[in-house]
Amino acid sequence: MQRFALLGAGFIGSVHAANLSAHPEIDFRMVYDVDQHRASSVASAHGARAVANLDDVFDASEIDAVFIASSTDTHSQHLRRAADAGVAALCEKPIDLELSAAAETVAYVEAAGVPVMVNFNRRFDRDHARLKQLVHDGAVGQVELIQLTSRGPSSPPLQYVAVSGGQMRDQTVHFFDLARWITGQDPVEVFVAGSALADPRITEYSDVDTSVATLKLPSGALVQIDNVRRTGYGYDERIEVMGSTGLVESGRNRQGNVTTYSGTRATSDGLPGGWFERVQPTYASALAAFVDSLENGTGLPTTLRDGLKAQAIAEAATRSLASGRPEAIRYA
Amino acid sequence: MQRFALLGAGFIGSVHAANLSAHPEIDFRMVYDVDQHRASSVASAHGARAVANLDDVFDASEIDAVFIASSTDTHSQHLRRAADAGVAALCEKPIDLELSAAAETVAYVEAAGVPVMVNFNRRFDRDHARLKQLVHDGAVGQVELIQLTSRGPSSPPLQYVAVSGGQMRDQTVHFFDLARWITGQDPVEVFVAGSALADPRITEYSDVDTSVATLKLPSGALVQIDNVRRTGYGYDERIEVMGSTGLVESGRNRQGNVTTYSGTRATSDGLPGGWFERVQPTYASALAAFVDSLENGTGLPTTLRDGLKAQAIAEAATRSLASGRPEAIRYA
Amino acid sequence: MQRFALLGAGFIGSVHAANLSAHPEIDFRMVYDVDQHRASSVASAHGARAVANLDDVFDASEIDAVFIASSTDTHSQHLRRAADAGVAALCEKPIDLELSAAAETVAYVEAAGVPVMVNFNRRFDRDHARLKQLVHDGAVGQVELIQLTSRGPSSPPLQYVAVSGGQMRDQTVHFFDLARWITGQDPVEVFVAGSALADPRITEYSDVDTSVATLKLPSGALVQIDNVRRTGYGYDERIEVMGSTGLVESGRNRQGNVTTYSGTRATSDGLPGGWFERVQPTYASALAAFVDSLENGTGLPTTLRDGLKAQAIAEAATRSLASGRPEAIRYA
Amino acid sequence: MQRFALLGAGFIGSVHAANLSAHPEIDFRMVYDVDQHRASSVASAHGARAVANLDDVFDASEIDAVFIASSTDTHSQHLRRAADAGVAALCEKPIDLELSAAAETVAYVEAAGVPVMVNFNRRFDRDHARLKQLVHDGAVGQVELIQLTSRGPSSPPLQYVAVSGGQMRDQTVHFFDLARWITGQDPVEVFVAGSALADPRITEYSDVDTSVATLKLPSGALVQIDNVRRTGYGYDERIEVMGSTGLVESGRNRQGNVTTYSGTRATSDGLPGGWFERVQPTYASALAAFVDSLENGTGLPTTLRDGLKAQAIAEAATRSLASGRPEAIRYA
Repeated sequence: MQRFALLGAGFIGSVHAANLSAHPEIDFRMVYDVDQHRASSVASAHGARAVANLDDVFDASEIDAVFIASSTDTHSQHLRRAADAGVAALCEKPIDLELSAAAETVAYVEAAGVPVMVNFNRRFDRDHARLKQLVHDGAVGQVELIQLTSRGPSSPPLQYVAVSGGQMRDQTVHFFDLARWITGQDPVEVFVAGSALADPRITEYSDVDTSVATLKLPSGALVQIDNVRRTGYGYDERIEVMGSTGLVESGRNRQGNVTTYSGTRATSDGLPGGWFERVQPTYASALAAFVDSLENGTGLPTTLRDGLKAQAIAEAATRSLASGRPEAIRYA
Repeated sequence: MQRFALLGAGFIGSVHAANLSAHPEIDFRMVYDVDQHRASSVASAHGARAVANLDDVFDASEIDAVFIASSTDTHSQHLRRAADAGVAALCEKPIDLELSAAAETVAYVEAAGVPVMVNFNRRFDRDHARLKQLVHDGAVGQVELIQLTSRGPSSPPLQYVAVSGGQMRDQTVHFFDLARWITGQDPVEVFVAGSALADPRITEYSDVDTSVATLKLPSGALVQIDNVRRTGYGYDERIEVMGSTGLVESGRNRQGNVTTYSGTRATSDGLPGGWFERVQPTYASALAAFVDSLENGTGLPTTLRDGLKAQAIAEAATRSLASGRPEAIRYA
Repeated sequence: MQRFALLGAGFIGSVHAANLSAHPEIDFRMVYDVDQHRASSVASAHGARAVANLDDVFDASEIDAVFIASSTDTHSQHLRRAADAGVAALCEKPIDLELSAAAETVAYVEAAGVPVMVNFNRRFDRDHARLKQLVHDGAVGQVELIQLTSRGPSSPPLQYVAVSGGQMRDQTVHFFDLARWITGQDPVEVFVAGSALADPRITEYSDVDTSVATLKLPSGALVQIDNVRRTGYGYDERIEVMGSTGLVESGRNRQGNVTTYSGTRATSDGLPGGWFERVQPTYASALAAFVDSLENGTGLPTTLRDGLKAQAIAEAATRSLASGRPEAIRYA
Repeated sequence: MQRFALLGAGFIGSVHAANLSAHPEIDFRMVYDVDQHRASSVASAHGARAVANLDDVFDASEIDAVFIASSTDTHSQHLRRAADAGVAALCEKPIDLELSAAAETVAYVEAAGVPVMVNFNRRFDRDHARLKQLVHDGAVGQVELIQLTSRGPSSPPLQYVAVSGGQMRDQTVHFFDLARWITGQDPVEVFVAGSALADPRITEYSDVDTSVATLKLPSGALVQIDNVRRTGYGYDERIEVMGSTGLVESGRNRQGNVTTYSGTRATSDGLPGGWFERVQPTYASALAAFVDSLENGTGLPTTLRDGLKAQAIAEAATRSLASGRPEAIRYA
């Protein structure tokens, strides 16, 4: 049984709270949020208690692990406190908006030796995980070409864009991680072409909403990632991995399975309306994998080092968008 | 808020307990089972209390509704007690193994005026419900031909077969109900061809495990139902409705969405391993619809009368299996 | 090289003429039709000569084989002349509208020993042939349940209905043949339910346009066939074979492969507009198989005996429609 | 009726010969090839005559149009002779391996005013053509992102590679054309990442066999093209066009439509074995469109200018592969 505290009781925090409450091997004890009312509300819904003081959270006699779902600018400090207190942590990405600060945090936490997992939840998508397993088992031979598509239904609010770090650091970073995870390779170069097509005001933040990234891997394999902020057809995510002997695809998920044939057309259920519909089950799976790792001492499925590397790719991708050229990726 | 007692704490009772516990408008109060240990175990997992005496259950000052998930031979008596006590009931099918006894129970309960819903959960399958809505909205014109397929992965134990009433009353009855629900018509004649192919010992119980039923509807529309107890490929359920202007299909559900192309073949995820994987979400949806009806005084989505009519079709179908001829359906 | 004469230069005759002309091992020599103008037109388009006298056709010094695509009432006499002349024949179904006359013709032709193939072209559908091969190779174990669907887009003219022999003899007979071909078994009993839904005037001819047939096979396996004369969504044909270890499906063919996702719906290309679009390639394949058999002395893919048996099932099916009961099938 | 001569009687020439022979509005008169034996063989199979002298071909009193399917290094000279003779031409791509020479040829032919169509046959793929129509009709709003995939089953022989001009000029050029055709825009910049993964000896020819190209369009829309010379799963081609309101996909074509479900897997027919299987019907459609244009004086579906522009993109793409940077596209 693992005793947990949750940091952050916003939308995603409340999703995590429900999963913490439902997991049979978790004793969900505390909720902390800068907004104490929000903390109380989430805590009481799940039989945990709201705490107003972070000192009460980072107490190894009370908890075994923290779930860091607070705002991005607090991740580093919470991770360091977890390291100091000797409690494990499951932390939302990114580690720190500044890559160099993130690297320092990682070094600090690694020195302390506490287990920390970065919550790259898409690795826990049922279909993506099966694709990864098939690639790993050699079902398509040597990996040669990967396509990753992720397209959300609606542009984020501009105030979110302002603090997001840009599309590469905020959205594409998930797929930089998936590319590393699927191939076991660290990309060496990235080129990004991007445009502001859905909401041109995004250019005021030097950002784009429609982008195509090309990664080169050490083996010569190539990766395409296309990311879009606003579609007219729901949330669209798919992965294709072509290898030397075949292709494996984690295909578009449909909302349902009903088809109407009439005249010369067949009309079927389309894609999920939003990203949350598609990724919701991944949060529970990621949490379960973290707990499993803590209970059994097996390796963490995603490490701080993974988080740092995905960020390093996102940095180079952001530079490429600005320079208009391919950029070498520099890992810390 | 509706106060509930659960009758029956076996496998399906424990599924219902979790749904009762999770529903925001339900106050889940009591669990009764002839096996008190089982009642206690389910009750304590969900903050309800186990009760040893049925008199404590059927008390309208304590509860608003009972969920009857006990063994089939108790349904009638529990329904009558609910009628006497003036509490609503959500009751697993069938009402009674004997059609005439079922009819008497229905008359008794209807006279009392308490709301009772028969739990034909497949009406609440997301895809089937959408198909029904499309048919109702005229997407395929006048209904002319329906195909219903339901095939389970493994033969039931013979001791289950012995008390099940046979494939028509146990399995096919769900699809007799769906045929009525989709068309709004009461079939007039049924012909069934059946064989014992998976486990020939089933013939000792005058039962079959592979059957094809044909129903005639008053409009002249035809219905095919094929039911199988044991497939080699998981749980297979689909519905097709052909109308005068088109076809709507609630298709096979796949376990996942991953496809591997290699050589001249494409290999994809197959069907769910068992019926429960497919139908699990329907239980929560059915319960939610029942609660919604109680709260808002809207009509019940499935009535005792629906349960009685599906049973009447199953009786005629069972007669057809024995006689080898089409049989007229006699509704009570 | 096989020298051919074509009997019948109507729509289907002209389809066969093009295939006769294109086949590299066929010397397409003559065309005969009661309408000499029609014969000339088809003959000249393909470098053959129109002949006005049947004596010129049935001359083994001039031709090796006849393709009998003339009206149904002439099949028997042409087959007998082919037998007398010692030339092979590929003959459209049925052999004769009267089952007893068909049986006599078969006996006569078999006594003569000339190779005759009945043109059950659907056996040569690419997908159906692959399904049959998979079943034969044991991909689904012992056959237990078969579904055959064939639904055409538009009701035939009433003058066609008048001479067609009815839906069982005209349309369903193809699927009686497929059921025998797939399983290698001769069905023992048939029950048919039918309605006149698309064009009620068809009842004046004691015919139906929407029907569901159930066949029992000696092994206990069951077969469902649904046939429809008029859909609102093009030509729909599919086959499913469930065996003891799996299921194989020859699925709906789509017109194309284009899908549009917009809002919550995905819209795709529907089914072929008519039966001819779907079955056209089967004619060339059937002809090629016939020629292959003649050249290599290998067995005929479909024999007169196959034609006779399919007709016998159609007779019993027609009786069942009239009697409202299952009927035993009597093979000649 | 259009009188045609065919130049080139190799593999693709013989494909065109069959289509010339089958088209009802074409009088297929002559075949020329540097190998006279080859010319005779193709000519006699289709009732045309082999000619040994090009002067006999380019004679407007004898022919209305030439089909130029000879080796690439002869295209320019044949086009100029057609211009001189005043006969129309349907010409395989490219116009000339040298872009500047191609531009001169185009100017020469345009001055002469004879109708010339470059045979970008993929525009005539049934599915691609429907996708283009849907985009044109506004089914997905403003185009924002396009993915084009084309992957062949086997690496070409090195002697072919040596004279092909490289993957961009030989394979990808088709998709540069499709990108222009779908959007009606001329791309302004191209970046290509490429690797030699299937046959590393291809690097001796400064070529690649696995490549990812990114195009920027004037509107800000982005285009991804991935091209592969050797897959382990047949010939794979698909197009996706995402617009402001939806997505349209011309999907993978399957060889057939048969699926086997067994255990937890479903196995289906895979992709066509080779490119020819997929694109064969496009040749007849392209020829028909050319003839239609000649007969009705309507615009040519693909012009020399289209050919020149696709080549200009291929030149910039080839430069990008060498430089490792995005390259501006310079149209002549």
